[in-house]
Amino acid sequence: MTTPDLIDVHPAWLPVEAFRAVGSRRTLVHGDGMLVDTLFDEVERACAANGGTVRRAADPHHGVPATAGGPDAARAQAAATPAQLVFALTATVPGPAPGFRGEAVRSADGDPVEAARAGLGATAVGALGAEGFAVTRQGEVTVVLAEEPAGLLYGLFEVVRRGEAAFGPPYPARVHRPAARRRMLDHWDNVDVHPVMGQVERGYAGGSIFWRDGRPRRDHARLRAYARLLAACGVNAVSVNNVNVHATEARLLTGRLDDVAEIADVLRPYGIRVHLSVTFAAPVVLDALPTADPLDDAVRAWWAETTRRVYARIPDFGGYVVKADSEGQPGPFSYGRDHADGANLLAEALAPHDGVVHWRAFVYDHRQDWRDRSTDRARAAHDHFAPLDGRFRDNVVVQVKHGPIDFQTREPVSPVIMAMSATRLAVEFQVTQEYTGQQRHVCYLAPSWSEVLRFGWGDEGRTVADVAVDGGGLVAVSNVGDDPFWTGHPLAQANLYAFGRLAWDPRLTPQAVLDEWIDLTFDPAATADPETLRRTLHEVMDDSWRSYERYSAPLGVGFMVRPSDHYGPDVDGYEYTSWGTYHFADRDGVGVDRTRATGTGFTGQYPPPWSQVYESTASCPDELVLFFHHVPYGHLLHSGRTVIQHIYDTHFDGVAEVAETRRRWTSLAGLVDAAVHARVGERLDEQLRCAQEWCDQVNAYFYRKSGVPDAQGRALH
Amino acid sequence: MTTPDLIDVHPAWLPVEAFRAVGSRRTLVHGDGMLVDTLFDEVERACAANGGTVRRAADPHHGVPATAGGPDAARAQAAATPAQLVFALTATVPGPAPGFRGEAVRSADGDPVEAARAGLGATAVGALGAEGFAVTRQGEVTVVLAEEPAGLLYGLFEVVRRGEAAFGPPYPARVHRPAARRRMLDHWDNVDVHPVMGQVERGYAGGSIFWRDGRPRRDHARLRAYARLLAACGVNAVSVNNVNVHATEARLLTGRLDDVAEIADVLRPYGIRVHLSVTFAAPVVLDALPTADPLDDAVRAWWAETTRRVYARIPDFGGYVVKADSEGQPGPFSYGRDHADGANLLAEALAPHDGVVHWRAFVYDHRQDWRDRSTDRARAAHDHFAPLDGRFRDNVVVQVKHGPIDFQTREPVSPVIMAMSATRLAVEFQVTQEYTGQQRHVCYLAPSWSEVLRFGWGDEGRTVADVAVDGGGLVAVSNVGDDPFWTGHPLAQANLYAFGRLAWDPRLTPQAVLDEWIDLTFDPAATADPETLRRTLHEVMDDSWRSYERYSAPLGVGFMVRPSDHYGPDVDGYEYTSWGTYHFADRDGVGVDRTRATGTGFTGQYPPPWSQVYESTASCPDELVLFFHHVPYGHLLHSGRTVIQHIYDTHFDGVAEVAETRRRWTSLAGLVDAAVHARVGERLDEQLRCAQEWCDQVNAYFYRKSGVPDAQGRALH
Repeated sequence: MTTPDLIDVHPAWLPVEAFRAVGSRRTLVHGDGMLVDTLFDEVERACAANGGTVRRAADPHHGVPATAGGPDAARAQAAATPAQLVFALTATVPGPAPGFRGEAVRSADGDPVEAARAGLGATAVGALGAEGFAVTRQGEVTVVLAEEPAGLLYGLFEVVRRGEAAFGPPYPARVHRPAARRRMLDHWDNVDVHPVMGQVERGYAGGSIFWRDGRPRRDHARLRAYARLLAACGVNAVSVNNVNVHATEARLLTGRLDDVAEIADVLRPYGIRVHLSVTFAAPVVLDALPTADPLDDAVRAWWAETTRRVYARIPDFGGYVVKADSEGQPGPFSYGRDHADGANLLAEALAPHDGVVHWRAFVYDHRQDWRDRSTDRARAAHDHFAPLDGRFRDNVVVQVKHGPIDFQTREPVSPVIMAMSATRLAVEFQVTQEYTGQQRHVCYLAPSWSEVLRFGWGDEGRTVADVAVDGGGLVAVSNVGDDPFWTGHPLAQANLYAFGRLAWDPRLTPQAVLDEWIDLTFDPAATADPETLRRTLHEVMDDSWRSYERYSAPLGVGFMVRPSDHYGPDVDGYEYTSWGTYHFADRDGVGVDRTRATGTGFTGQYPPPWSQVYESTASCPDELVLFFHHVPYGHLLHSGRTVIQHIYDTHFDGVAEVAETRRRWTSLAGLVDAAVHARVGERLDEQLRCAQEWCDQVNAYFYRKSGVPDAQGRALH
Repeated sequence: MTTPDLIDVHPAWLPVEAFRAVGSRRTLVHGDGMLVDTLFDEVERACAANGGTVRRAADPHHGVPATAGGPDAARAQAAATPAQLVFALTATVPGPAPGFRGEAVRSADGDPVEAARAGLGATAVGALGAEGFAVTRQGEVTVVLAEEPAGLLYGLFEVVRRGEAAFGPPYPARVHRPAARRRMLDHWDNVDVHPVMGQVERGYAGGSIFWRDGRPRRDHARLRAYARLLAACGVNAVSVNNVNVHATEARLLTGRLDDVAEIADVLRPYGIRVHLSVTFAAPVVLDALPTADPLDDAVRAWWAETTRRVYARIPDFGGYVVKADSEGQPGPFSYGRDHADGANLLAEALAPHDGVVHWRAFVYDHRQDWRDRSTDRARAAHDHFAPLDGRFRDNVVVQVKHGPIDFQTREPVSPVIMAMSATRLAVEFQVTQEYTGQQRHVCYLAPSWSEVLRFGWGDEGRTVADVAVDGGGLVAVSNVGDDPFWTGHPLAQANLYAFGRLAWDPRLTPQAVLDEWIDLTFDPAATADPETLRRTLHEVMDDSWRSYERYSAPLGVGFMVRPSDHYGPDVDGYEYTSWGTYHFADRDGVGVDRTRATGTGFTGQYPPPWSQVYESTASCPDELVLFFHHVPYGHLLHSGRTVIQHIYDTHFDGVAEVAETRRRWTSLAGLVDAAVHARVGERLDEQLRCAQEWCDQVNAYFYRKSGVPDAQGRALH
């Protein structure tokens, strides 16, 4: 299985088999535009593989209907036969909507497209929006309606996802609209190979698909394949370079803008807009201005002119991404300005072009003194940003990591998300598994993200998903590289897919998303035992995040990873560093006191009820108890176990679960592609080795500190 | 101050001022040969700066005496005036020795050279050896006699070292002979920049003086200056590439031999022979032989022919250095052979050319399981090598690190040194400060080396120095790079100097060596306050190694450094790794039980009395107690303090000592060169910061584990 046009690259969730249902029908496409052309090409390719046909309805731009698929004689017949699948822009179909100028598809049941249009009712016009669509089954015809070409393309991928089920009994129009307007992936890809971070910072899937050794890769086939995959899961924006902007990468904004435009040209036909990470110091480093002060008129003029040039070259450019005053990146603090000043500077430049600036809230002191227990990194983003609520321009999106620290396996939700109702916020996830096994471990992250998205507070029951939907949407750090499986670990593809789907619809359950992904990727129906395949994949993946949590840092305390690469255990690795990530374990207990009563006061950053829930060990959820409290090893959890026994038990359990996963995966031989089976098998061997190492090191560490033996008498070292 | 011919490089212990006494005399040189030419050039340069003269005695090869220094008229006069300093090969002076064919230097007191020759007495002929010399003051003439040119050159540097004292009242002939025949520096320099280890593995003084980015540097002025410095402290052998031999470096043996020959040509005039680190797999990787089995005839033939070609190109080539079956390097184990088989293979190839192979005994399992407390890395070298005693060819030198682990600040002496009386051993020190502050900390290492060299055992009172002197001599890992101060930290030059001097004469005291180095390098006599300068430098340096020990890993336990770079503290950094370097601290105690009674049995590798001394905490020296024993925190040391209080006290003391050193150094402003003063000052700032970090982390670690407060109530974190 390979992606069309792409040799030796895994097709992920778009193998040719996924198009079997669409490609075996007679399809008619109404409407035009670049994305409709893309849709037509997709269906045409599907038909070539599966015997169906596709033609375009006559329209002012296409004088003669285009038809494809089958030999010439069949084509002629197809044109005369009623379609089984119709894609139509609402402006092109009959009915009350103005501007119909297309071709009806009539059958014995009447005109199904007209019926579909009518079925949308009074809310139809404008209600689908720029990317929404409706799907209905009218008699023997499946109809996809959209107002804009992007919606039609997303509709195609919905029909692909439904497969034969899209062609069953009739059903009324179902409207699909993306929850968030912007569903974005940030690539932490460097143009130059960084001496420490490499080609892709925190990349675990080989090199970059955009850049190699200082130059653009120009692998357009691969980029196009990537764009298809993203469109098929709902992503519509991509930032093409690392948020840590080094010297060469800074020049993408000006002297190397053509490199960005080239990528934009390849992604555009799939509805994906390109964004760029820029350095706040750009006026100084690129044009030798004496300052980058956001209130300086020359600086404002520089950004305005620079941005004008960007849009002259890339008219649909998405905007800027900025990591400012963070981990050594320059920012407004250098000029005595705050982050609203900084973000508004770029927003002002982008506003005339409908661009946005994603301004990251990941601001903290990374030169903290580990001896100082009063400073709390968890507080930093809220301390910096909450007071600025209301001061940001409309086209500023403050991009907030989902937790207060840094993409740990388990964190509470960042209180910043609950504190800035007058600001557009985007919530940032990390698809690349920096702290969750680096794509050597199976770790399906949708359950974690879903927990975050469903997290609610206050009397109105507002959720994280609500904030993202109403604000700047969802953003995630990509896990894609030039690996043949895209993501190193083939099962890590599911995280990329799930991110897009949850950004489109945060109410989807992780299990449902996984079902979609399994059906698309593994084509179970074509195997000898579809149910075993589906069930086993669920067993392997559904709980894999919680397994990872069990064998790694316990009870929400986080950061017990090796500092050099963030992989594998090093319990004290960050304990005496400047990074603000401590567990404070001693011979009596462990955890960080973040209470108002006796600790850093971080709990006070939460609205009710969480400000109270987290304040007391009596109400704090077990899985976060060490994030919020320093407790004795003998502290009784709600589970009825002591903290120390919980540590031992969960670590032994986690390893046993990975061993069981390894066994289950072996049993799938013959049911999944041999190359995928082998690659995942290798990774599971490493996962089992590493999980055992986590278990033994964490247990040994706490046994040596606490002196408490395991209640079950298992070996501690 | 710069080295002659070399811009912007510090002259180290050979500034022009060091030649003041020699350069202001009338000197006569008897004899010829390349090294006599070198001597003449040195004196000539000294005279040019200081107004003296030098001429060569007539000899068959120099028909007309050469004279240099002063204007022409003065030269003519000089030639007619009795010399004040005479260098002569014994074969060229009058007296009973045959072969005199030179020119006498007569004065009113008779012929001082003849007197000097006579003063050597009956032992003279042959007794000075290839590198020895005698110095005497006869009336108004200082005479240096040697049998070979190298001895004469070493005699010059001895006169330079003595300065005006060499020209005072008469004294009888003093014979100087190097204790060890070979006094060698190993450069861990890579030809290619290694992606992890860089241009110089464990190098803390910039790039390599030999190689840059895959090519030879060809900075002959710098290499010549380096050769001078080495000759002036007694080093006579240099290995030019890293013992970890990567792909490019392997080719130095064959296709890139010219690069080695070029270095040899520059070092040769100072009596320094070049050695090469080779990979045991060379026949396979360089010539595609199917095996590197040391007993295979084709492999033996390959090494014989390859070595013949090396000597055809470099007739005085020193030999090979081999790290085999160690940390991933190939070796005889792959073929079911042992290290005697492996070493003898290369020795056989080298024997016809009088070359030697330095075969490192640094062999251990670097993939050890930290859970397994029965395996002891300290045992490994003895386990591997002691049984092979007597099986090595005469031209094998087994090169043994001075301690059983790896150049830690404090280790016991390796028992291998006491276990192989039928094998030539070289003792290996580490001048580069990998584990002792990386040339950011002042750490004068001669006191440590001196302790090792004076360490004795058995009824005959044999010492480490005896083993080295009778065997393969001393070897050290160089600390030199392309830094303007040669060694990064200017005071680290003293370690390089001291290594050479101790290799020449292991009985020298560290204080005496430091005196020499101070007088040569800092020229105190020319300053406003010579005594303050000398005293303060001693205060800064004499005890600096013990200060470093106080604020780093306690009581001989070692390896509490950051794994990534071996700099700075990380108490648990190696605790759960595969490297075999553990401290086993828990809430009750700390240390490694290496006793025969209850531990790994390592103490049994020692001969009496040490096998008994180390076995019991009652006799084990405090500074090694945690190397040999796991003891409770309350264990009483011979000092009367508990282990835990010792840890606290020494760490606070160590920091205070560095603070005092910093203050003392500041007081030297105006007494030392401004650039040196500034560089050392910067490094001391970093040392103080780092020492505080060591103190706080080690103390916090043990406080959190033990729960014992400091008896003096100082802050623990």
